[in-house]
Amino acid sequence: MEVPLTPLDFLRRARKLHGAREAVVDGGERWSYEEFGTRCDRWSSALQRLGVTQGDRVAYIAPNTHRQLESFYAVPQIGAVLVPINFRLVPDDFRYMIQHSGAKIVCAGADHTAAVDSIRGDLKDVEHFVSLDGPRDGWLDYESLLKDASAAFDRPSIGERDLLTINYTSGTTSRPKGVMITHRNAWMNSVGMLMHWPMTPGDAYLWTLPMFHANGWTFTWSVTAAGAKHVCLPKFDAPTIFKIVAKEQVTRMCAAPTVLIMLANAPAEAKALAPKGVGVMTAGAPPAAVTIQRIEEELGWSIIQIYGLTETAPGISICEPLPEHRALSKDDRAKIKARQGVEFITSGELRVVDDQRRDVPRDGKTPGEIIARGNVVMAGYYNDPDATAKCMGDGWFKSGDAAVVHPDGYVQITDRLKDVIISGGENISSVEVEAMLLRHDAIQEVAVVGVPSEKWGESPHAFVVFKTGQSATPEALRQFCRDNMAHFKVPHGFTPIGELPKTATGKIQKFVLRKGRANITAQ
Amino acid sequence: MEVPLTPLDFLRRARKLHGAREAVVDGGERWSYEEFGTRCDRWSSALQRLGVTQGDRVAYIAPNTHRQLESFYAVPQIGAVLVPINFRLVPDDFRYMIQHSGAKIVCAGADHTAAVDSIRGDLKDVEHFVSLDGPRDGWLDYESLLKDASAAFDRPSIGERDLLTINYTSGTTSRPKGVMITHRNAWMNSVGMLMHWPMTPGDAYLWTLPMFHANGWTFTWSVTAAGAKHVCLPKFDAPTIFKIVAKEQVTRMCAAPTVLIMLANAPAEAKALAPKGVGVMTAGAPPAAVTIQRIEEELGWSIIQIYGLTETAPGISICEPLPEHRALSKDDRAKIKARQGVEFITSGELRVVDDQRRDVPRDGKTPGEIIARGNVVMAGYYNDPDATAKCMGDGWFKSGDAAVVHPDGYVQITDRLKDVIISGGENISSVEVEAMLLRHDAIQEVAVVGVPSEKWGESPHAFVVFKTGQSATPEALRQFCRDNMAHFKVPHGFTPIGELPKTATGKIQKFVLRKGRANITAQ
Repeated sequence: MEVPLTPLDFLRRARKLHGAREAVVDGGERWSYEEFGTRCDRWSSALQRLGVTQGDRVAYIAPNTHRQLESFYAVPQIGAVLVPINFRLVPDDFRYMIQHSGAKIVCAGADHTAAVDSIRGDLKDVEHFVSLDGPRDGWLDYESLLKDASAAFDRPSIGERDLLTINYTSGTTSRPKGVMITHRNAWMNSVGMLMHWPMTPGDAYLWTLPMFHANGWTFTWSVTAAGAKHVCLPKFDAPTIFKIVAKEQVTRMCAAPTVLIMLANAPAEAKALAPKGVGVMTAGAPPAAVTIQRIEEELGWSIIQIYGLTETAPGISICEPLPEHRALSKDDRAKIKARQGVEFITSGELRVVDDQRRDVPRDGKTPGEIIARGNVVMAGYYNDPDATAKCMGDGWFKSGDAAVVHPDGYVQITDRLKDVIISGGENISSVEVEAMLLRHDAIQEVAVVGVPSEKWGESPHAFVVFKTGQSATPEALRQFCRDNMAHFKVPHGFTPIGELPKTATGKIQKFVLRKGRANITAQ
Repeated sequence: MEVPLTPLDFLRRARKLHGAREAVVDGGERWSYEEFGTRCDRWSSALQRLGVTQGDRVAYIAPNTHRQLESFYAVPQIGAVLVPINFRLVPDDFRYMIQHSGAKIVCAGADHTAAVDSIRGDLKDVEHFVSLDGPRDGWLDYESLLKDASAAFDRPSIGERDLLTINYTSGTTSRPKGVMITHRNAWMNSVGMLMHWPMTPGDAYLWTLPMFHANGWTFTWSVTAAGAKHVCLPKFDAPTIFKIVAKEQVTRMCAAPTVLIMLANAPAEAKALAPKGVGVMTAGAPPAAVTIQRIEEELGWSIIQIYGLTETAPGISICEPLPEHRALSKDDRAKIKARQGVEFITSGELRVVDDQRRDVPRDGKTPGEIIARGNVVMAGYYNDPDATAKCMGDGWFKSGDAAVVHPDGYVQITDRLKDVIISGGENISSVEVEAMLLRHDAIQEVAVVGVPSEKWGESPHAFVVFKTGQSATPEALRQFCRDNMAHFKVPHGFTPIGELPKTATGKIQKFVLRKGRANITAQ
């Protein structure tokens, strides 16, 4: 009677009800849901012929192609565990993740086969290497295997608490950890996304967010659940995005903050190509209000922010629009949109608590740590009971993110706990200082970190990326800050920098800035 | 980490995030989510003081009041099982359901206390009788108990497969059966409703559909999940509905087909009161295309049809709008809206199968039986393993409804299996003949049943309710049918009738028509 909660069921339904409807577009190629499903089935069958059985791990290193998308169905439907690896990492990372997950098969895109070859001697447990984008010496060829395979495969019985994927965290400070996502976790997040951000068979979803990143925030499955169209985009810049949005009548996309900034700062002639009315979901770092305003006013798109971590499948909050927001001024609305919001109907409980596990007051000021429990919280870290116990041993998952709660119950992240700057006994939110500096016309990106200060203990220091052809003196920037915020929060120093160090998922690596600039001392 | 799937979690979330928002309106009274939640807590506490413990049954006989709504939270949150009884039934039915469920407490509205008193001598297992609408001799008073109770109660641990409600079927032919709905069943249906028919905190939902009826199709919980407003309406006619829709800015309602017909046939001056843009969900019997057209064109409301049974919590299909429907003519769109549609994303698998359990072809012609499996299917019939085994012993729930599948995969009910008329070896769908007759200007309602025929085995016979002040001769009706459908389907006889016999949930009791008119023989 009862059936397990699994996102695989979405493809079963889509094939049955939307078999002839366009499922996937990738460059010049197009597949219906029936064709896409048959390709997944053939790849499942091929994997079984290669010896993959229930519980085995299959790793992928690939950008957003239809073959990467196929992995999200073909691998789990034989009961195997998908390990989608961040392709922007380096061979050392690949080695660690492939070895740690014990992957039996490694599939790689054209840009990554060489990197894998460079570490192949260390990958003794891997039984087969599969090239996704065409024949290569020493590699099996994906399309040939698929062509030779039957669509009939042995479908094992899968429980909703079985492992679906292992997603490695980006690891800004420590070794990457393998987040174990179950079928139930992913189903829950996929459904929650659609409840709060509905899609229908008339929608088209653009893949700029990497599919490896928390399983593309589970849109790898949500889009299929809705019977909507996946538009794959392995590489892009702003004009490419605007063009494909127009061509494929894209209505929905997820975008990391860096992509949002890229779109917001695109030249006017590129923006002119973009149709109105696209819904954009963002997460990963709190976007500045100014970025939100530009996307919404200049493009006529609407932004919704969610918050979460790979460990929470990922969504544990969404900045849900409320009827009372409609009456607000543009500025006030943008401020609310910069908040991380409230728990999803399906994600479980989210709390912001102090050291004593007491909920912080709803005053928009008192910081606490975000903790969560519910059906999106991972089963734990793969083969790492100590790290698992540390972050969720008492039944609540500890996010490591500092946040305040506004009077309306909306949560706003102030910082990663470890990124809070404590200067002269005052807490300074680096995120708040960054958001203010982003309002300066010359600034493209900025990161604020604490540097050692004899007088203050720590003091804020800003690393600034200027827009092409623009700049500003430290004095001008300091004055801009003093005009706009409490003086104790104003950075004591400003360092222009060509590019900010980032993790492969686009999060700024503040520890690199801190480490590389340890010799900076505050004035 | 993981938490049980239960609709109780929706109230937890609504109180936290929408505590000050209007939750419930009932006549002149209004409660915020925090006030409503506190009332539920107090009633939970009072029930515990009355000796109700986990697993006990608490029966209600009441119309759509806020106190009936409170039962959907107060009873299950102490682990007890709610038995919402159809108040339109007679004392004999009440006796059977109260005894069969073993209810420890019976709560009744003002119109039903006397009926309960009339059978009270037989209700030895009931420990307390509670009057919901004010003091009455021999009854405890709801509001007094609530006032005296603390909001603190003992919250037991509840599993998602625990029993939440027992809903008795209307029983057209046999004894009522107690459908066991679990927390997981109800959560799944509530979430599915919102995925396909989104509501937000800005929505207001009007209660015309009885809450006892399959738990108000789970909108008792879905509305709360969305943070929307419940507008209670214990009694109504068309003008009352139109007035309250305007006053409370109602945006959503569920309506049984008889309510739809009432709205469709309301006088023009009553319709003129109605604001546009209300979304109406209907189910229970396939509405005629003409009814759909009138509601949509004359009122500017939009109708969506779902299908299901009390045994499936209830939704197992929804007539999901598709982008390609937009290009259709009004007539063709109305025809599609009269279909029962496709499985919900969350409801599990729905199939239409022949006697050999093979899926029928998608030809819109070949009838089969609707069967289903998934997380909305009940745990079984209470204390009735035989009936449970009979309808779902092999893992699929058998609906007893006959349907065809159209080429687009949309399911359309042709009849209850037992209502199919077999005339001269041809299957005649009584529903199809009824839908055609409803297009006649003089006809308000109609029911077609098979009557014995020497020549044909069975032949169709129509029972017709004319609109006030209108009528038509049998000859005229026969000619109307001959002009519009295959001749073998045309009723051989027409009987005017003042009112059709119906179950308390509004389903026409064809067995009564057949029985009462067994002396009719076809010409």
